Amino acid sequence: MKDKMITFLPIGIVRNEVKDSQDASFDWSQITSEIVLDEHYSAYTRGLEEFTHILVIFWMHRPAKKKLVADVHPRGDKNRPTVGLFASRSPHRPNPAGLKLVELIRVKGNIITVKGLDALDGSPVVDIKPYSPGYDSIEE
Amino acid sequence: MKDKMITFLPIGIVRNEVKDSQDASFDWSQITSEIVLDEHYSAYTRGLEEFTHILVIFWMHRPAKKKLVADVHPRGDKNRPTVGLFASRSPHRPNPAGLKLVELIRVKGNIITVKGLDALDGSPVVDIKPYSPGYDSIEE
Repeated sequence: MKDKMITFLPIGIVRNEVKDSQDASFDWSQITSEIVLDEHYSAYTRGLEEFTHILVIFWMHRPAKKKLVADVHPRGDKNRPTVGLFASRSPHRPNPAGLKLVELIRVKGNIITVKGLDALDGSPVVDIKPYSPGYDSIEE
Repeated sequence: MKDKMITFLPIGIVRNEVKDSQDASFDWSQITSEIVLDEHYSAYTRGLEEFTHILVIFWMHRPAKKKLVADVHPRGDKNRPTVGLFASRSPHRPNPAGLKLVELIRVKGNIITVKGLDALDGSPVVDIKPYSPGYDSIEE
């Protein structure tokens, strides 16, 4: 499928205090990040503040230098039996696209402040979408 | 940011009966799709069948020829006041990355059958991830 490459241009970049790769035990839940969109997207965020949570699709631009493998331990826990990569959330994926549901703290023009985003500082952002429970979650 | 292009290689392709673009009123919920992964990913799906739902990130490869605008009517409903594009799920986004939570019907090697995917036939797939309520949804 090399003739069908998908090319995205980042809409912005993640800014936070996490500069280096972390292992699976790192607690991202309390990390506050700013998603700094390109300035010409300032008007595109109007109304986003009505939502409590958003979905962020980003590029894990600094993967650990690991070979891509079919079998991984869930959550990097070697005590758990391996599963296929696509049955895991391992970051070592064919396409390192990060997807995270995060708490929306504040929106100010092109700057979106969120909590719980598990992206390193400098990660390019592909898209943000408002989170709607009826569409993005399953009633148990 | 043109120097920071993000390039993904599709891991597979969507196959279903929906060949042409649909308007916002189209009911995707009953559409069954096969996600046909490249054959060398057959082993990567092991264990995925343990999940009831998966998240699919795909490329909306056949966008309607509309100009990108900052203001859109939610769900394409002209009776609703406009919001900024990023406060909507409009497909006419800077990066047309689709994200959909779908019901997992069956996994057989490189072929994953799902229900409710709102992707046209032929859409390239960027990534699939298992859905975990505790990680991917918010307790109300």
